[in-house]
Amino acid sequence: MEQLLNLYNKAKKLNNDQLRDLIRSGDYVGQTAGLSKNMLQTNLIILEKKYALDFMIFCQRNPKACPLVGVTNVGDPFFKTLGNNIDVRTDVPSYNIYKSGVFYKTVCEIYDLWNENLIAFAIGCSFTFEHSLLRNGFSIDHINENKVVPMYSTNIKNVKSGPFENTMVVSMRIFKKDQVNKVINICKSFHWAHGKPIHIGNPHEIGISNISEPTWGNAPRSLLKDEVNVFWACGVTPQNAILNSTVPFCISHTPGYMLITDIEEDAEIPVLQ
Amino acid sequence: MEQLLNLYNKAKKLNNDQLRDLIRSGDYVGQTAGLSKNMLQTNLIILEKKYALDFMIFCQRNPKACPLVGVTNVGDPFFKTLGNNIDVRTDVPSYNIYKSGVFYKTVCEIYDLWNENLIAFAIGCSFTFEHSLLRNGFSIDHINENKVVPMYSTNIKNVKSGPFENTMVVSMRIFKKDQVNKVINICKSFHWAHGKPIHIGNPHEIGISNISEPTWGNAPRSLLKDEVNVFWACGVTPQNAILNSTVPFCISHTPGYMLITDIEEDAEIPVLQ
Repeated sequence: MEQLLNLYNKAKKLNNDQLRDLIRSGDYVGQTAGLSKNMLQTNLIILEKKYALDFMIFCQRNPKACPLVGVTNVGDPFFKTLGNNIDVRTDVPSYNIYKSGVFYKTVCEIYDLWNENLIAFAIGCSFTFEHSLLRNGFSIDHINENKVVPMYSTNIKNVKSGPFENTMVVSMRIFKKDQVNKVINICKSFHWAHGKPIHIGNPHEIGISNISEPTWGNAPRSLLKDEVNVFWACGVTPQNAILNSTVPFCISHTPGYMLITDIEEDAEIPVLQ
Repeated sequence: MEQLLNLYNKAKKLNNDQLRDLIRSGDYVGQTAGLSKNMLQTNLIILEKKYALDFMIFCQRNPKACPLVGVTNVGDPFFKTLGNNIDVRTDVPSYNIYKSGVFYKTVCEIYDLWNENLIAFAIGCSFTFEHSLLRNGFSIDHINENKVVPMYSTNIKNVKSGPFENTMVVSMRIFKKDQVNKVINICKSFHWAHGKPIHIGNPHEIGISNISEPTWGNAPRSLLKDEVNVFWACGVTPQNAILNSTVPFCISHTPGYMLITDIEEDAEIPVLQ
């Protein structure tokens, strides 16, 4: 545990290129919140070409959870519009594999699984606006503790496209009640990274029965009297849409273990200029 | 001409539903700038399913010109996420048809051309932020004169996807030099409608040799001494990408003659709630 924390603290000092190199080499397999500050981090979904159109339409119809920031050409494992050398086969610290709508296993690279029929999608991530919150003096529990942000499946229905539907996933952070408006104002301009919160307050209202048992990530601490749970639409939503779907094969990042890009987090568009 | 102006002035008083009904009935075939204030207007592209994935990737890679705000299901002529009853076959005042990368003809409805193999894409339009400029006291020439905004093909290369490439199209409006910062601040939040200008000042710098001869729309007046040309990325860019392409068949709106949606122009996401 101490070794992991040391590695995380070392990774904190690296820029986006250096961090991606470390991940590619297999020497960093941890979560990425708080890392590579100022650069857009993304969720990852890899599908067979057959499902690509339905999936892109799913993202377009559910833009709070699925802001699409990059797409490879079919068969090409490089995100050319997101950086000079981003290889989806190796550049994420941890991958989830789904088979026929069921989680199958976690792996550290997918070099042998990639083939000419696959296409990769990068989806904006809330870690992008966390850096702006830190710069504005906010404290974020999971970054302080090198934990994975708590994520929950909700009762908020997605708009359907082909086999993709299910409900929205949210990530949660704790803030003081009197600071929430400031949080909203900071986050609202990050429209490639989920923007404003989707819900503030009672978890039950969005179908979360037990806040101490997140669907993904680590359990949060209890609220103090002057604090509140703040929920954002989350880029793990497509993984929820894969679960129980008819999609035979999908590779994603492991929630919390993101792809680091060369796009500045406040860029007007997520395309390398 | 006077009859057209009378009809335009009548149309100005209609809300989005009423205006779309009038267009659907064939009784309004004019340009739509300045109409249906407060509601998102969109560009339209209709393609065979075969080209849909490449086209969606083209939009994702060129988001300033091609902010995708709606996609139908294949074969379904209704934009269900943009309104309660938006029929792409009849609800645009004027359509352009392209065959094998060449403009073929203009028609007022495409009822007989629609088939089960087609898919329609709605792309944000600068007319959306014009209303906000008007509310802030700005005067916009083409709205005052019921003309079509001048649009130009430029030398700004698009990011390629499949058969789609070519260069960006821009729309142009004239403002006083000392008002440009205010214009930028008003437009920058409309990220579904091209946002901030792409260029301010010299048309030659972006490959426009003669500002008096727009590629689409009506010629602008000459600049006064204290004025400047302000250019925005334009949703006619996909039509430019169709020209000289290998795409056998495409239907679009006629530049300036847009689709009126039920989405408020300052909505956080372009999806009917």
